Amino acid sequence: MSSIWGNKIKISLFGESHGPAIGVVIDGLPAGHLLDQSKIAAFAARRAPGLTPWSTPRREADEAEIISGVYQDRTTGAPLCAIIRNKDTRSADYAQLRDKPRPGHADLTGRWRYGGFQDPRGSGHFSGRLTAPLTFAGAVCSQILAHYGVRAAAHIAQIADIKDLPLGGLAYDSKMLDELAQKKFPVLDDAAGQGMIDLVLAAAEEGDSLGGVVECAIYGLPKGLGSPMFAGLEPHLASLIFGIPAIKGLEFGVGFKAALMRGSEHNDEPFWQDGKIAFKTNHSGGIVGGISNGEPLLFRAAVRPPASIAKVQHTVNLSSGENELLAVRGRHDPCIVPRVTPVVEAASAVFALDVLLDGEAGQDG
Amino acid sequence: MSSIWGNKIKISLFGESHGPAIGVVIDGLPAGHLLDQSKIAAFAARRAPGLTPWSTPRREADEAEIISGVYQDRTTGAPLCAIIRNKDTRSADYAQLRDKPRPGHADLTGRWRYGGFQDPRGSGHFSGRLTAPLTFAGAVCSQILAHYGVRAAAHIAQIADIKDLPLGGLAYDSKMLDELAQKKFPVLDDAAGQGMIDLVLAAAEEGDSLGGVVECAIYGLPKGLGSPMFAGLEPHLASLIFGIPAIKGLEFGVGFKAALMRGSEHNDEPFWQDGKIAFKTNHSGGIVGGISNGEPLLFRAAVRPPASIAKVQHTVNLSSGENELLAVRGRHDPCIVPRVTPVVEAASAVFALDVLLDGEAGQDG
Amino acid sequence: MSSIWGNKIKISLFGESHGPAIGVVIDGLPAGHLLDQSKIAAFAARRAPGLTPWSTPRREADEAEIISGVYQDRTTGAPLCAIIRNKDTRSADYAQLRDKPRPGHADLTGRWRYGGFQDPRGSGHFSGRLTAPLTFAGAVCSQILAHYGVRAAAHIAQIADIKDLPLGGLAYDSKMLDELAQKKFPVLDDAAGQGMIDLVLAAAEEGDSLGGVVECAIYGLPKGLGSPMFAGLEPHLASLIFGIPAIKGLEFGVGFKAALMRGSEHNDEPFWQDGKIAFKTNHSGGIVGGISNGEPLLFRAAVRPPASIAKVQHTVNLSSGENELLAVRGRHDPCIVPRVTPVVEAASAVFALDVLLDGEAGQDG
Amino acid sequence: MSSIWGNKIKISLFGESHGPAIGVVIDGLPAGHLLDQSKIAAFAARRAPGLTPWSTPRREADEAEIISGVYQDRTTGAPLCAIIRNKDTRSADYAQLRDKPRPGHADLTGRWRYGGFQDPRGSGHFSGRLTAPLTFAGAVCSQILAHYGVRAAAHIAQIADIKDLPLGGLAYDSKMLDELAQKKFPVLDDAAGQGMIDLVLAAAEEGDSLGGVVECAIYGLPKGLGSPMFAGLEPHLASLIFGIPAIKGLEFGVGFKAALMRGSEHNDEPFWQDGKIAFKTNHSGGIVGGISNGEPLLFRAAVRPPASIAKVQHTVNLSSGENELLAVRGRHDPCIVPRVTPVVEAASAVFALDVLLDGEAGQDG
Repeated sequence: MSSIWGNKIKISLFGESHGPAIGVVIDGLPAGHLLDQSKIAAFAARRAPGLTPWSTPRREADEAEIISGVYQDRTTGAPLCAIIRNKDTRSADYAQLRDKPRPGHADLTGRWRYGGFQDPRGSGHFSGRLTAPLTFAGAVCSQILAHYGVRAAAHIAQIADIKDLPLGGLAYDSKMLDELAQKKFPVLDDAAGQGMIDLVLAAAEEGDSLGGVVECAIYGLPKGLGSPMFAGLEPHLASLIFGIPAIKGLEFGVGFKAALMRGSEHNDEPFWQDGKIAFKTNHSGGIVGGISNGEPLLFRAAVRPPASIAKVQHTVNLSSGENELLAVRGRHDPCIVPRVTPVVEAASAVFALDVLLDGEAGQDG
Repeated sequence: MSSIWGNKIKISLFGESHGPAIGVVIDGLPAGHLLDQSKIAAFAARRAPGLTPWSTPRREADEAEIISGVYQDRTTGAPLCAIIRNKDTRSADYAQLRDKPRPGHADLTGRWRYGGFQDPRGSGHFSGRLTAPLTFAGAVCSQILAHYGVRAAAHIAQIADIKDLPLGGLAYDSKMLDELAQKKFPVLDDAAGQGMIDLVLAAAEEGDSLGGVVECAIYGLPKGLGSPMFAGLEPHLASLIFGIPAIKGLEFGVGFKAALMRGSEHNDEPFWQDGKIAFKTNHSGGIVGGISNGEPLLFRAAVRPPASIAKVQHTVNLSSGENELLAVRGRHDPCIVPRVTPVVEAASAVFALDVLLDGEAGQDG
Repeated sequence: MSSIWGNKIKISLFGESHGPAIGVVIDGLPAGHLLDQSKIAAFAARRAPGLTPWSTPRREADEAEIISGVYQDRTTGAPLCAIIRNKDTRSADYAQLRDKPRPGHADLTGRWRYGGFQDPRGSGHFSGRLTAPLTFAGAVCSQILAHYGVRAAAHIAQIADIKDLPLGGLAYDSKMLDELAQKKFPVLDDAAGQGMIDLVLAAAEEGDSLGGVVECAIYGLPKGLGSPMFAGLEPHLASLIFGIPAIKGLEFGVGFKAALMRGSEHNDEPFWQDGKIAFKTNHSGGIVGGISNGEPLLFRAAVRPPASIAKVQHTVNLSSGENELLAVRGRHDPCIVPRVTPVVEAASAVFALDVLLDGEAGQDG
Repeated sequence: MSSIWGNKIKISLFGESHGPAIGVVIDGLPAGHLLDQSKIAAFAARRAPGLTPWSTPRREADEAEIISGVYQDRTTGAPLCAIIRNKDTRSADYAQLRDKPRPGHADLTGRWRYGGFQDPRGSGHFSGRLTAPLTFAGAVCSQILAHYGVRAAAHIAQIADIKDLPLGGLAYDSKMLDELAQKKFPVLDDAAGQGMIDLVLAAAEEGDSLGGVVECAIYGLPKGLGSPMFAGLEPHLASLIFGIPAIKGLEFGVGFKAALMRGSEHNDEPFWQDGKIAFKTNHSGGIVGGISNGEPLLFRAAVRPPASIAKVQHTVNLSSGENELLAVRGRHDPCIVPRVTPVVEAASAVFALDVLLDGEAGQDG
């Protein structure tokens, strides 16, 4: 308990990878917002599998059916539920796994948590597939955020040891962000991106997988959102981002690099600019004392390499009590960073709308 | 809003650095546990200032007065409230800051959030001093956790570019952890620790400050605690740890290093050991699919360098509308990593008791 | 915001009366429980319309499709989502109501809340039809409760001025409760019930509607569940029961009659019975200090007469700014007490499982 | 668990009747509001004991010390903690009760909940004394509400079978409400009040106690506050009011009388009045579909007779396993309705500020 997140916007995720459907209830959406279904579909397509050589060939259009909360294409203010039917499921692939848990997967921990009654097919509710309804929620929220001038954007910051340009170092440029969102492999530096793709394909060839880092910025948040301590923007966003499967690290602004900096370097100095206060740098990631300072909210999330690999691994046999070898068959992503990127962006949009509606921003300076 | 955290154990922090008192309400403690006040005081002393050359000379004994929830030295099950009176306050130090916000502090964001009505003395509710009641809460919870065989332990993992030995690489050793907890400068490798101290003193000499990293392990959590998605152990712990002022990054297990690893390296392979399942490695930090796997829950938190430095910095004058220079006077820590270390440990104890009481652990394997 | 309730069991309701579907996500169900679909359908049939002369002729089988959280007929521990498709909708009946809000309905308050964007068809998310997924949730929870020896049972206590026998006055009798659950008109005293039916039909004949009272008992709750103050059983159950449309009053035990009693009458005196403590009376409704005392948890809920009546009423015209007359057409229940009865029972089952799983019961005496 | 309530305003109560102190943390107060301490003291005095022949002679000034969240007499936006020291405690009165639980009190349920470790002195955390910090919170919130034109007012509606005039039947009259708040025995009809006092004194003479009903109205809430289902105003207010010890019933508007009404009588018909929509009646208590309709939010709460009576009662001896007789000694209220009245008003103020800050009101019509 529980797959529910949020204060003003509450999202409740449900479903299993190989069950009838997955979906989400979004509670708390403001009424009256026109939803453009084609934009929702376009956002979903960025996460959907089967479209590129570096993702699983499982093909799911991920078409969401909205079954409540929308009337005449506008949000009604009532909970919006959308479901996505599972179609291309091949449960047979998973038959051997009942006795032989896959290393790095939740097969064992799920069993310990649920006494063996969890849905074993395709990781069940633990599946990365649950990020599809989360992406749907983000697509809905991002359309509403546009009316407030708020936008989230994410890119692949790193795969293995190849790094993209830092998004945090660039000025806000909506055209650039539009282009980024349309790229099949969302990087700022396409040459670096090609290097990453080559590495991913090589790892796939070897039956192995790669990890990486996603960077995300939220632009346009008003100054003064958030609160100190546990209601700060960092803990609140962290409680959402760490809910995305495979995320094992999160840092705001310079994050862990802060360990290597002095206060005189790290402090973001304010200055007057056109009668408003701006900051010379954004080492804090736009959050000081848990509260937004008007700079882009900037963070990076570490993505572990996918656990499902073709390479032979050691595991336990739960029936025989023996140690055994296992090669995970099935269709898997050799690297999920490209697909996690829109998920992180979607989650950020859900977060941004939640804190915006919380209505606790004070006066802008 | 709000300074409240938790599910079964709820902690509600209150107070300002220079107000009458700071404190905490701990709601949900199980009844009947004997509390050893001397252990609580010893835990508090680890965080208290004024005891070492590397911390502020402000001296506060941080004596907590328990005003509810304890009867005949035992928890009653009712909310436990403790308050710590502020004694050694010198508000005059902060007079000039009303107009000239300190870079890196919440002076500006607090103003934007609260319309200028926040308590400006010593950062008010934003003060790191609020970690004193959090530490008290951790001291209480850790005593109760001992009955369940659960223990949290933290050490300074890094200051600037000097690193301690990794706690995660060591077998559980209660004697070693006892010694660690008694050290004034809690590192495993005292030589490395001396190097860190030298760096801190040198930075202080220059009117500057240093950041670092705290590593923490929670030992003894049963297998099967937690849940997938937003109720996972990572998001839940993150929502607490990022509530500690100055924490800007958090990673579980190998964390960001996962970006550089292949699945075949990162996956923790299970094996049978004396009829139970153990894992060859702990790259996941003891959490898979949001659920504990029986290995130590291991994480690292990045601590930014303190914002208060004697060095001259640029800032804005809110009255004149001019840019100005500022040198922050007062008594400040040149590096708070040593004092954040017991705070992180305390927070981990609160977290561990919260998830333990949530009672959702399944069967051990 | 929000249509979500609960601590350990969280239910999230969604849907509109004339949208594609209504449904519920139940988060936090314990894993491994076999669900008997025929029992769920039988529970739903108790609430379903169209079966009796005293309910709307709208016919909905209310068949719930479970789309997550169940595998091989057992709960998996993951969120259980069920949807019920809307079939027999005639939106044309509601066309005139856009401008002329129906007295007693949420047409005006919904407009004030949602700025006119709420779904106006059949009361949208405000519809009593949302009690169908709540009933589904109760049917699921009641099956799990049976394993704990806990059972909720409700009956029609009163319609207009005719009263049924008090359930609270009777000893626990599972056979009697089984029979009660199978009655089309769930009363203990069938003669009184026939009198109620006659009144309802007479009111319907006049184009009017009737209110009443539902009484419910929860049997088998262990002693020591609940907490003082806001986490007491009364506030927790009240926050659920008052969420059922049309409920305008709630009392525990003797409730409002307590105003007429003296302490010496009202106090439930304990006595030793077979080595255990029992109580001579149950005026407190099984709850003292917010905590269960081992007696049946007993409460009564007031149900207002349905707002939809054929009789001509006064209302406002929102377009013309004039006062006007309105006769509500469409198919409506002249009295919803019979259908609210299983809903209250279902809600009580959700509540009972929630508090039971909260795991805070102490020792039985 | 837990003694915490609210969404935007969270109150966390702590303390025991005979411990060092009781108190409250109020989290989420908007910043910048001037607090008039004399008004807070005056509100507290309305609840305080020892001032009238119909209340316990225990004398407590209930002076609250604010220890955080206020700076220069204004709210800072940080959590406001106030503590009230316990002074006039005579624990010896309760010594015999360890073995002989008092009928009607939480002595037994507290023991079952907390395994016997609850504070037994003066009912500990179960004590009605905990309503002092709740009253403090209401006094603070009511001052802030005044800026929004919102006001709560409560009176004694009934003691035994004597009823006051209905507050709900009167037009809003601030002068009348001021006078009501200053009365030692807060009724609208002083003749009826004198009758009630006579009954109370007579019952006290007999060593017995009386119950009653409190009626409360909240004036000035904007239209469109609240939400359908579980986030409705009724469930939210109920979850607070039922947290007040001794409250066993709650009804909105006509409440249980709705059972005796027809739809044509119960429906509140809207009409145009000076270009705005008003209602001819207020049977719904100002809430339709969980949402405010601009009429006074009106409710009544049933108060059980105090459990502590001098009359001899039957109880159990927990040591001997025998049934025994008990006469409760000590200083007790023969009727708590007069003192519960300001508590209900205070709770309503906390509620009103909470929903007002939730910021979900739509457009006024």
